[in-house]
Amino acid sequence: MTAIEQLKQRMADVGTLQSSAAVLEWDQQTHMPPAGAERRSSQLALLSKLGHEMLTSTETGRLLAEAERGADALDADSDDAAYLRVARRDFDKAAKLPTKLVEEIAQVTALAHEQWAAARAGNDYKRFAPWLEKILDLERQVTDHLGYKNERYDALLDNYEPEMTAAQVRVMFDALKAPVVDLVKAIASRGPDAVNMEPLRRDFDEEKQRRFNESVIRAFGYDFNRGRQDRAVHPFCTSFTRDDVRITTRYDRNFLPMALFGTIHETGHALYDMGVAAKFDGNVLGGGASLGIHESQSRFWENLVGRSRGFWTHFYPALQAEFPVLGDVDVETFYRAINRVEPSLIRVEADEITYNLHIMLRFEMEVDLLDGRLSVSDAPDAWNEKCRQYLGLTPPDDARGILQDVHWSFGGIGYFPTYTLGNVISVQLYEAANQSLDGRIPDLIARGEFLVIREWLGQNVHQWGRKYTPAELVTRCTGRPPTPEPYLRYLKTKFGDIYGL
Amino acid sequence: MTAIEQLKQRMADVGTLQSSAAVLEWDQQTHMPPAGAERRSSQLALLSKLGHEMLTSTETGRLLAEAERGADALDADSDDAAYLRVARRDFDKAAKLPTKLVEEIAQVTALAHEQWAAARAGNDYKRFAPWLEKILDLERQVTDHLGYKNERYDALLDNYEPEMTAAQVRVMFDALKAPVVDLVKAIASRGPDAVNMEPLRRDFDEEKQRRFNESVIRAFGYDFNRGRQDRAVHPFCTSFTRDDVRITTRYDRNFLPMALFGTIHETGHALYDMGVAAKFDGNVLGGGASLGIHESQSRFWENLVGRSRGFWTHFYPALQAEFPVLGDVDVETFYRAINRVEPSLIRVEADEITYNLHIMLRFEMEVDLLDGRLSVSDAPDAWNEKCRQYLGLTPPDDARGILQDVHWSFGGIGYFPTYTLGNVISVQLYEAANQSLDGRIPDLIARGEFLVIREWLGQNVHQWGRKYTPAELVTRCTGRPPTPEPYLRYLKTKFGDIYGL
Repeated sequence: MTAIEQLKQRMADVGTLQSSAAVLEWDQQTHMPPAGAERRSSQLALLSKLGHEMLTSTETGRLLAEAERGADALDADSDDAAYLRVARRDFDKAAKLPTKLVEEIAQVTALAHEQWAAARAGNDYKRFAPWLEKILDLERQVTDHLGYKNERYDALLDNYEPEMTAAQVRVMFDALKAPVVDLVKAIASRGPDAVNMEPLRRDFDEEKQRRFNESVIRAFGYDFNRGRQDRAVHPFCTSFTRDDVRITTRYDRNFLPMALFGTIHETGHALYDMGVAAKFDGNVLGGGASLGIHESQSRFWENLVGRSRGFWTHFYPALQAEFPVLGDVDVETFYRAINRVEPSLIRVEADEITYNLHIMLRFEMEVDLLDGRLSVSDAPDAWNEKCRQYLGLTPPDDARGILQDVHWSFGGIGYFPTYTLGNVISVQLYEAANQSLDGRIPDLIARGEFLVIREWLGQNVHQWGRKYTPAELVTRCTGRPPTPEPYLRYLKTKFGDIYGL
Repeated sequence: MTAIEQLKQRMADVGTLQSSAAVLEWDQQTHMPPAGAERRSSQLALLSKLGHEMLTSTETGRLLAEAERGADALDADSDDAAYLRVARRDFDKAAKLPTKLVEEIAQVTALAHEQWAAARAGNDYKRFAPWLEKILDLERQVTDHLGYKNERYDALLDNYEPEMTAAQVRVMFDALKAPVVDLVKAIASRGPDAVNMEPLRRDFDEEKQRRFNESVIRAFGYDFNRGRQDRAVHPFCTSFTRDDVRITTRYDRNFLPMALFGTIHETGHALYDMGVAAKFDGNVLGGGASLGIHESQSRFWENLVGRSRGFWTHFYPALQAEFPVLGDVDVETFYRAINRVEPSLIRVEADEITYNLHIMLRFEMEVDLLDGRLSVSDAPDAWNEKCRQYLGLTPPDDARGILQDVHWSFGGIGYFPTYTLGNVISVQLYEAANQSLDGRIPDLIARGEFLVIREWLGQNVHQWGRKYTPAELVTRCTGRPPTPEPYLRYLKTKFGDIYGL
C-alpha cells in the first residue's frame, strides 16, 4: 500500500470512531433512559480520546508527511491533493492541542453543560459564571496552541468556518447591521397588527403534524431508507455516513411553525450530508465544507423554499386538509403569518430578519470575552445593553438573556457567526441557482418540483464535501466569495412586499 | 496507583468499548435505517478490534501479572481475588486467539449471517453450507488455540458457560431425555383437544398489549428510569451499564403469548443485569455469571412466575379488562392454554417441555459437526432424523429444520445447551427461594407481591455478577451444583396436573 492509502485507512478509522460516538450522542438525545447518562459520558470520553490519539499519533504524522512528498505529482484540483490538504489541516489542528487540554475541555464542558442547564432553569447566572470563566480560559489556551495572526477569535472561528477571520465577519456584519436595523424599524412602524400570527397558534394534533411534515421532506428528497426522524428536546441533524443521516424535531401542539420549520431546517442539513459524493463517504473529504455552508443549506430549505409564497401555493391545500381548523385562513394570511417580523428576546424563536441581530450581539460579546476586554461578571449587563441597542428590548432576567444559549457551555465559542453567514450564503446560492435554472425556481417551488432544486444543490454544493474551502465553494457556485448584497436585496424585497414598505 | 488499580482502569476501558459497541448493536436492531448497515459493520469491527487489542496487549498482561503477585495477600473470597481470577480468565482466552483469527471470524460471520438469512428465506441449505463449513473450520481453530482436555466442544462451551464440559452436559441431558420424552408421550395420549389454545389467537390490539405487558414488568420491578423497551424483529436484552438495561419485543396481534412472554423473558434477563452490585458495574465482575445463569433468570420469570396459576389469579382480571374479547374465557382455561404442550418444528415457538428436546438435538449435532463425525452435507438428514426421534415430526423443508436458528451463522457453537441449563437452574433456584421464604412464593405471586421474590434473587444471584463461577453460585444458593431432579419434579407436577396424568 502507498503512503496515502495507508493514511486514508488510518484516517478512516478516526472517522469511524467519531461516527460511532455520534451514534451514542444521537441515542443520548433521543432514547437513552435518564440513568444511562453517567456511563454514556465515559463512553464518549473514551471514544474521543482514542480518536484524538489515533489522529495525532506520530504514525499518522509520518504517513501524512510521506504522502505529501508525492503531492507534487498530483493535479492541484485532484481529490487526492484536496485530501492531503484537508488531512494536513485536521492533523495540525489536532496535533497542536495537547491531549491533556483536550481531555480537560471534555471534562469541564460536560460539567459546565449541566451547570448551565441548572443556571438557566434557576435564572442564576452566578452559578454558571465560574464555568464560563474556566471555559474562556481553556479556549484561550486553545488559541495559544493553535496560533493566530491577528486576533484570538480567528483561531476558534477557523474550527467552524475554515480560513474565515473575525475581521471578515466584522466587515460582513457591519454591512448588514444598519440596513437590517432600518428594516426592522420600518416594519415596526406598521404596527403590531400588520401581520396576524393567531392562525399558527390553534390546535394542531402532533401525529398530523408529523405526517404533514414527513410529506414535505419526502417531496424534497429526504430518503427514509437512509435516515429517520425522532423526537428530541433540541432539533438536530446527525450523520454516521451519507447513508444514515438522521434528524430530530420537537412538537408544539399550539404553535405549528415549531416542528414544521424545524423539520425543514434539519432536512436542509440532511440533504447536504446525504448528497456528499459516495467516494468521499467516511474519509476526511466527507461531511460539509463548514458550518456556514451547512447552515446555508438548512436556511435555503427553511426560508427560501419553506417560507416562500410559492411553497404554500403548492402545500397549503394539503395543510388545510390535514387541519380543518385552518379552513377560514386563506393562503396569503397564512404566508404572512409565518413571515411575521418582531424583535424578541430568544434567538431560537426569532424571525428571519431579527435573527441576525441576535447573532451580531453574540459575536461581539464573544470577541470581547475572549480577549478579556469584557469580564465574565460584567457580561450580563453588556448583553442586556446590546439587546436594548439592537432589538429595543431588555431581558427581564438572565435566563431570557445571556443564559439562553447552550453554545458557550460546550465550549462552542466562534460558532455563532456561522448562522448569519449561512443566511447570507443561502441567498447568494439561491440567486446563482435561479439564474442557472433560467429564473424558474419560484415556479418550480409553486409546482412542488423540488428535486430539480435539490439536484442543482447536489451538483454545485453537496457532492464536493470538504474538497473546497467555504470561500472557494461559494466562488465556484456564484462567481464571488460570500457577500451580503444578495441577502439584503432578498430581505428588502420579501419583507417590503409583506409589510408594504 | 497500584498495579490492580491500573489494571482495573485498563479493563474498564475495554468494557467501555464493548458497551459502546452494544449501543451500536442495539440501534442496529431497533432503529437504524436499512442503508446504514454497511457503516455500522465497519464501526463494530473497529470497536471490537480496538477492544481486543487493548485487552490482549502486553501492557495488560504485565499489569495483570504484577497485580497477581500481590494476590496471595488477598482473602480468596474478596472481590479483588475474584477480580484477578476473572480478569486472568478473560485475558488468557482473548490473548490465546491471534488477532487475525478474531478478525477473520468477525468478517466471515458477518457475511455468513446474511447468507444464512437468505438461505432460510429461500429454503436453500446449499447456499449456507459452505459458510457453515468455514465457520466450523474457524471454530476448530479457536479450540486449537484455546486448548481443551477431553473434547473440542469443551473449549467453546466454556465461552458461554465457564468451566462446564460437554461431558457434564451429556450427563444432565441423559437424565432429562427419557423422562421428558415419556412426559411428552403421556401428554400426547390425552389427545390434541385436551387443552384449547384458541383464546390466545383472538384479536389483541398491539398498543393494549404493550400497556398490559408494561404493567406486568413494572410490577416485577423493571425500572424505566434505567431502561426502555423497543420493538425489534428478534426480542433481546442488552446492557450498557446496570443503569441502562434495554429490552425489545415483537407483537403478534393474533397471538397474545408472543409479546407477553417474550417481554417477561427479557425482563428476567434485565432484572439480573440491573441487580449486579453497583461496585462491579463497568468492571470485569459486572454482567452475568454465564449464559445458563442468565437464562435461569429469564425462565424463572417467564415460566415459574408468568406461566403459573397464581400469576393469572392476580393478573387475569386486568387482562380481561384490557381485552374484553377474553370475557368468555375463565382463568383456568386461559392458564391451561398458555401451558399447552405439543411437539412442533420451531424451537422459538416450542412449549416449556418440548423446548428441551430442540436443545438436545442441537447439542448433539454441534458436537458431531465440530468433531467432524458429521459432515456439513449430511447435516440436514441428521437433523431431520433426530427431529423424528425426539419430536415425532419431520421438517417439511430445511427452513423449518436445520436453517431455522441464527446461532451457527454468528459462530455461536456451544451456546445452545445453556438454554436447557437455564431451565434446570431456574427450578433449582425457585425451590431454594421458596424454602427460604417458607413456601410462600406461590402465594406471593398470587398476591402480586413480586418484589420479595426479586429481592431474594437480587441477594442470592444478581448482586454477585461474575464473582462466582456458575457452579459455585448455584451451590451457594441451593447447596449443590446444577442438577436436573428439581426441574423434572416441577415438570411432572405442573403438567401432570394440567393434563390429568
